[in-house]
Amino acid sequence: MPNPTAAMLVIGDEILSGRTRDANMYHLAGKLTEAGIDLKEVRVVSDDHAAIVAAVNALRGAYGTVFTSGGIGPTHDDITADAVADAFGVGIDVREDARAVMEAHYRRQGTEMNAARLRMARIPDGAALIDNPVSAAPGFSLRNVHVMAGVPAIFEAMVESVLPTLTGGAPVLSRTVRVERAEGDVAGPLGAFVRAHPELSFGSYPFNRDGVYGVNIVVRGQDAAALDAVADALVAELGGVAA
Amino acid sequence: MPNPTAAMLVIGDEILSGRTRDANMYHLAGKLTEAGIDLKEVRVVSDDHAAIVAAVNALRGAYGTVFTSGGIGPTHDDITADAVADAFGVGIDVREDARAVMEAHYRRQGTEMNAARLRMARIPDGAALIDNPVSAAPGFSLRNVHVMAGVPAIFEAMVESVLPTLTGGAPVLSRTVRVERAEGDVAGPLGAFVRAHPELSFGSYPFNRDGVYGVNIVVRGQDAAALDAVADALVAELGGVAA
Repeated sequence: MPNPTAAMLVIGDEILSGRTRDANMYHLAGKLTEAGIDLKEVRVVSDDHAAIVAAVNALRGAYGTVFTSGGIGPTHDDITADAVADAFGVGIDVREDARAVMEAHYRRQGTEMNAARLRMARIPDGAALIDNPVSAAPGFSLRNVHVMAGVPAIFEAMVESVLPTLTGGAPVLSRTVRVERAEGDVAGPLGAFVRAHPELSFGSYPFNRDGVYGVNIVVRGQDAAALDAVADALVAELGGVAA
Repeated sequence: MPNPTAAMLVIGDEILSGRTRDANMYHLAGKLTEAGIDLKEVRVVSDDHAAIVAAVNALRGAYGTVFTSGGIGPTHDDITADAVADAFGVGIDVREDARAVMEAHYRRQGTEMNAARLRMARIPDGAALIDNPVSAAPGFSLRNVHVMAGVPAIFEAMVESVLPTLTGGAPVLSRTVRVERAEGDVAGPLGAFVRAHPELSFGSYPFNRDGVYGVNIVVRGQDAAALDAVADALVAELGGVAA
């Protein structure tokens, strides 16, 4: 049975302008692979209502689960919650449980709950809250869409909350064989392995570091013994080392 | 006049599996901002023919220029050139000028031109080659789609070749004001600036580093004097410092 599928939507002008280097995609990709969920597509869009609505609707229809990152803070450019509500055609308003969690947190910190912060308690109708152990303002899950903060520490905490609620597949295992030969020399013999093992997936990633060039061949699959056997054969045939 | 628009398509299972952290998106985003071209959307898809064709067609229709990264090497999982040819409905075959450039490079290196390497000389009909000063195998431009390697050093060199051929807009300038206050306290007064300056764009990016928390406010626009005036006013009003 194929593994469940997922997509990610990164929201934020700061990524598209090159001001900030996204870290959440890399983090989520690794976590989903461990969980046996196939991340099939990522999109990055700007802080634009129509763009967010269109991307949420395209991705939630095409994939089993969608994760969003960014745009749920207190400022004018934080418009993700409203866009997700529009994408689902549901209302959005301040939710009392979200407000209560935030007020308790601010009280402990001696911070005031002002109008800007109250915006972060606006949650689309029918959504479940996602806990924010860092700064209280919650994310939310609406059907198969999980809306999370862009700040990496909060994003990562929210991923930890959501992942156990999802049905994963068999974790994808991998073996890497490092070959210090040009990718163009390895490609032919590697092709024979690819044809002989349709049940496994093979990736070929050239490197050139400190004057040493070569290729890392990554074999992925769900059967550890089969992977070990193929990795051993690749080492023998291509003159590589298990990496 | 609004700036020209662009999109990027990153192709590769290694990004979606979390094996590799993409670097090309961040690089291209910065270069396009300098050139006055607005990067509006990025998509990441796997090494899947149908997924690449669909993304190329969606992006080339919606934006002025499309850059792709990855999938033009010699191995079985390098399928970008064929997918781009299919997206445009044109043929693809070995191109003699691409083959000649590669053979000259391999001759200098004492490397053989084998069947796997020859695949890298397959170029869609009507495309112009993009020079690869690192390892010879070229990228190509087909109308508004620029197809480049995923290896960062080669990707970056190809971006340098392509950018001067594009019509840019006025470069987007920015000023950053760092305020060591909670984003929720800054959001209200910042909103007044946003409403007062519709010609500028304001971003608000919270940070929490080494126990110091606050927010970087980034103001973007094309008029340096207007940006300076707003940045000075933000410093005065919010108690920040120019960063």
